[in-house]
Amino acid sequence: MTDLGAALEIVGSRWALLIVERLLEGPQRYGDLQRDLGAPTNMLATRLRELEAAGVLSRLPLRHNTRAYALTERGLALREAIVALGRWGAEED
Amino acid sequence: MTDLGAALEIVGSRWALLIVERLLEGPQRYGDLQRDLGAPTNMLATRLRELEAAGVLSRLPLRHNTRAYALTERGLALREAIVALGRWGAEED
Repeated sequence: MTDLGAALEIVGSRWALLIVERLLEGPQRYGDLQRDLGAPTNMLATRLRELEAAGVLSRLPLRHNTRAYALTERGLALREAIVALGRWGAEED
Repeated sequence: MTDLGAALEIVGSRWALLIVERLLEGPQRYGDLQRDLGAPTNMLATRLRELEAAGVLSRLPLRHNTRAYALTERGLALREAIVALGRWGAEED
């Protein structure tokens, strides 16, 4: 497997990268992620669990049974790739 | 949709990015792509059609009924993002 293949094992799903992009702005509550991304809730929960298991993000304990998520160092290291992909997406065809 | 979302509309599938990575080395024959990527043939054909329709690659006419694919300018512009993702994939957790 190439290094890219290894990366895509972790962030190869569309939702995974969109979640990480959102968390680059800072920790987010589950409900806010769901609303902002418009992700189906099962999909979001599954991706968050996978990304937590892969060490990309961690779950923050909050009061009142709310959950929030923040990027780890490993997750923050995705910034360059996400910015580059976003720049590519912004370019005219 | 964010710029990243727009990019992922085109290259949001794992195979799409792996195909583009391979073509960054130069034009490739269909059979070589299939062998090198280990992609199911239907999957490969579908992704190639989508990437051609999106202007990321073009199909080169070769003799003897063989097909080859090369990146367009638009496809070559993915290099930075792919290199960044690959570098991330190569890092230890």
